[in-house]
Amino acid sequence: MIELILIGIGTGNPDHLTAEAAKAMNASDLILVPLKGEDKSDLAGLRLAICREALTDPATRVETFDLPVRDPATPDYLARVQDWHDAIAAIWEDRIRAHLDAGGGPRVALLVWGDPSLYDSTLRIAERVGRRLPLTLRVIPGITAIQALCAAHAIPLNDLGAPVTITTGRQLRAGGWPEGASTIVVMLDAGGAFEALDPAGLTIWWGAYVGMAEQLLIAGPLSEVAPQIIATRSEARARHGWIMDIYLIRRG
Amino acid sequence: MIELILIGIGTGNPDHLTAEAAKAMNASDLILVPLKGEDKSDLAGLRLAICREALTDPATRVETFDLPVRDPATPDYLARVQDWHDAIAAIWEDRIRAHLDAGGGPRVALLVWGDPSLYDSTLRIAERVGRRLPLTLRVIPGITAIQALCAAHAIPLNDLGAPVTITTGRQLRAGGWPEGASTIVVMLDAGGAFEALDPAGLTIWWGAYVGMAEQLLIAGPLSEVAPQIIATRSEARARHGWIMDIYLIRRG
Repeated sequence: MIELILIGIGTGNPDHLTAEAAKAMNASDLILVPLKGEDKSDLAGLRLAICREALTDPATRVETFDLPVRDPATPDYLARVQDWHDAIAAIWEDRIRAHLDAGGGPRVALLVWGDPSLYDSTLRIAERVGRRLPLTLRVIPGITAIQALCAAHAIPLNDLGAPVTITTGRQLRAGGWPEGASTIVVMLDAGGAFEALDPAGLTIWWGAYVGMAEQLLIAGPLSEVAPQIIATRSEARARHGWIMDIYLIRRG
Repeated sequence: MIELILIGIGTGNPDHLTAEAAKAMNASDLILVPLKGEDKSDLAGLRLAICREALTDPATRVETFDLPVRDPATPDYLARVQDWHDAIAAIWEDRIRAHLDAGGGPRVALLVWGDPSLYDSTLRIAERVGRRLPLTLRVIPGITAIQALCAAHAIPLNDLGAPVTITTGRQLRAGGWPEGASTIVVMLDAGGAFEALDPAGLTIWWGAYVGMAEQLLIAGPLSEVAPQIIATRSEARARHGWIMDIYLIRRG
């Protein structure tokens, strides 16, 4: 029986690592690290740096693998994502079988940005692998970009006793401000989905690379700071070759 | 200038502590630990145990203080909470002034269950203290009960690309299922707010003391497991003298 361990490692700050995550990494026989193509190579580099820093057990093997790309010829978004998960699951399966065939131990770990529960594919890919290999699944929580954003701005996520909606740029563009929400957090925005909103009475707290040395923060009335966020995001993306950003908007 | 550091310490598992939190604790001159009355004394004990385990710098002073109780004579919920925050802020202020008067250093930390951003009073109390003492605020994110719940059940928080609403037992009883939500997470429920919902097509993942040794988990169709959750919760609360629980409900 394989133990597949999905380890949340936080948002790129090596100090986001919990004691639980560090222990799980050291208890692993194999850690698989995806490479996402050249434009995100500093993310793979960061994963490898976290391994170097956290691993004290020389028996833990770290292996990289090339992440497949989503097929732009598949027009439907969900189908495209499902196919992509299938392709990644096939690679995990191959790597795990090869590791076991070579006499490797049964504990296999994947390091996940942020937390494995939040807008992340790893649990869905693990489920696919579990249909083809006998495995138990263990999940180690990690600091999410939501917490890193709120910490960086030193703001609460929620108004006192009030609800919060976590959503995506795609959903915000399609559906506008979620009915009844006083606070929304937007993730996976390819850029500027907040332009779909009437900015009157809305305040935004935006962050890119939250928790990392490159962290960028902008906050203010949406009507005033929206152009600055769009320009800053575009410039940072060009400079780094990639961007991960997130924002919180409050009404009133 | 005082540096007030709000440190998220996770949900009661000492291994939830991040490297950043441990470093901030050791860099602090004073750590204030609230005592919440006898029924929650094991929580204060747990905070003190985390201090003992994480602190390697003997110069860090740990002080407990008695947390005031909310005045049940104040009928309005928000007013009752505001008054309570004022009372706690006054205690922090007194303790910080006494510490400084005695020659203590300027770094003062508060340990926060979960994360300081999520349904927690610490940021709002810190803002009050900041009106009466010169201070800079620093927030260190921590593992929330939401991540600990999802990790324990090994489930994603969101459906693929779909939004999530985080809400309270009070909101759920008052407003029912949030418009347009496919997944909700309910916190601060005094017990059984899910009974206000039509359970048809709803699945619940419930957890109490998530991440701790006492952790309890129940999952299944809401219509089937609701009575078991209510009975388990009631029994656990009686046994421990307190309970912290949380649940996720998905539609379809």
